[in-house]
Amino acid sequence: MKTITREQIASVLPGIDLLPAIENGFAAYSEGRAVVPPVGELILDKGEVHIKYGYIKGEDYYVIKIASGFYGNPALGLPSGNGAMLLYRQDTGEAACVLFDEGYLTDVRTAFAGAIAAKYLAPTNVECIGIVGTGTQARLQLRYLEAVTDCRKVLAWGRGDEPLARYRDEMSREGYDVKTTSKASDVLDECNLVVTTTPAQEPLLAVAGLRPGTHITAVGSDTPQKQELDAEILSRADVVVADSIEQCLVRGEIHRALEAGSIDRGDVVELGNVIAGRTPGRTSEDQITVADLTGVAVQDIKIAEAVFKAAF
Amino acid sequence: MKTITREQIASVLPGIDLLPAIENGFAAYSEGRAVVPPVGELILDKGEVHIKYGYIKGEDYYVIKIASGFYGNPALGLPSGNGAMLLYRQDTGEAACVLFDEGYLTDVRTAFAGAIAAKYLAPTNVECIGIVGTGTQARLQLRYLEAVTDCRKVLAWGRGDEPLARYRDEMSREGYDVKTTSKASDVLDECNLVVTTTPAQEPLLAVAGLRPGTHITAVGSDTPQKQELDAEILSRADVVVADSIEQCLVRGEIHRALEAGSIDRGDVVELGNVIAGRTPGRTSEDQITVADLTGVAVQDIKIAEAVFKAAF
Repeated sequence: MKTITREQIASVLPGIDLLPAIENGFAAYSEGRAVVPPVGELILDKGEVHIKYGYIKGEDYYVIKIASGFYGNPALGLPSGNGAMLLYRQDTGEAACVLFDEGYLTDVRTAFAGAIAAKYLAPTNVECIGIVGTGTQARLQLRYLEAVTDCRKVLAWGRGDEPLARYRDEMSREGYDVKTTSKASDVLDECNLVVTTTPAQEPLLAVAGLRPGTHITAVGSDTPQKQELDAEILSRADVVVADSIEQCLVRGEIHRALEAGSIDRGDVVELGNVIAGRTPGRTSEDQITVADLTGVAVQDIKIAEAVFKAAF
Repeated sequence: MKTITREQIASVLPGIDLLPAIENGFAAYSEGRAVVPPVGELILDKGEVHIKYGYIKGEDYYVIKIASGFYGNPALGLPSGNGAMLLYRQDTGEAACVLFDEGYLTDVRTAFAGAIAAKYLAPTNVECIGIVGTGTQARLQLRYLEAVTDCRKVLAWGRGDEPLARYRDEMSREGYDVKTTSKASDVLDECNLVVTTTPAQEPLLAVAGLRPGTHITAVGSDTPQKQELDAEILSRADVVVADSIEQCLVRGEIHRALEAGSIDRGDVVELGNVIAGRTPGRTSEDQITVADLTGVAVQDIKIAEAVFKAAF
């Protein structure tokens, strides 16, 4: 069986136009063409493992993704996340490839979803990009937004001075004009395209500063507990988009806002339907829009297939 | 990550003493030391995929096994079964190895379970081994019984003359004294150690011919529908052993006999408890015993670990 290492993946990725591939994945998902069984979970003393698997009907491959988090690893000098994706042919079950991506492709496909959300929902004229958080997704989300906006002005919020300074220095070297703040409310005051990337369990962004024409993509919250946005932000939004309505009913910002009674189930539309033009996204410059991304297996399927095809 | 092919596995296997390793796995399972979440299942147009995963608490690795069956493959000149096992460290989640066994290790661990069942349950003096079926397990079960009995006299039953003759010729060349029959009742008349290996959905062995001192291992039935033994055979048995009571309640011979009201839940003991001496197995030569094997993830864990350790 063919195998690809993380280094090989990193060298292949820049040459692939993944945005349309992942858009197609979301559209197929919303159309009901994706088969995505419940996630398998293995809990160990020092970590946990998730097994996601599925396929898009009528396409070539099915994908099994193994992703683990071992939170004591950094103390041992090891990365906490690990993982691999396996591709098999839908028609014969023959193994096509194992991508030993160590979790890298999950990071990248998450960043692509943010870019896609911004493509369909951000205002035309982005004044300043707000990044909430200073970790891996804070970096990747900003980088992948390049495909959909010309704006290079950034305001970054973070809890610690040191990681915030490191984020500023690093992204400045990549050509961004980065300012930082320790006051989260500054972000909604100054930015009209905001991406939240933290594991917060209490809202970081309050509804008070929310201005017309703002788009927010919430990437951090992917469990029933996590929450980055005041539920009233979703209530005030003209368009609330979920990557997967089914998942967002039980986890993420939409889940919390439904629980709080701030929005109704019928207020939520699905990203794949916006992409396919079956549901309107942003229809005017002064609308407020929110996209809640919890991660869907079709993203894994599409990125694995694209990397495999590019590598061999 | 290290990888091992089917050929490498086949060359390593003969040098490993797997019987005690797999016995330990069953004992750990019955002791409640195994963590084995529900099996993941992916259904495709032309096949199906099962994902089994788990670990034994306090040991070194967790194992994820991917096994597929694509039933149109033989017409394309491809094997119907396929698969791989992945080993990861329990303490850090680091990948240890992928065994690209193509389903071979599942066949072998199933045969070892048959040998273990016979070791604890077969009568001391085996007159003749009865093999019901002529496929892969009909071969492997017989071969692996060598570890636990000196008997080389075999009576094989099969539905087709041609596969039955091929089975006889092949196993005769390996040193067995093989007779064949097309009358299933001959098997219970002539053999006191019987292994059933077919995907039958109607009983092949009737209770009428059942003699004192017989042991039957039923390997073929692993779904709620399949059945090789008349439910009354289990009712007449002095000892009924399941590899996993939990699984045998919903699939296999025990499931069918419970459904028919032929036995009660309390009549069933677990193989790992017999191995560990916590439950008696056969206690006299004239007892009738039945072992129902549906396949437990600890077998996969133990064989994967043993092959990995022997190969590197």
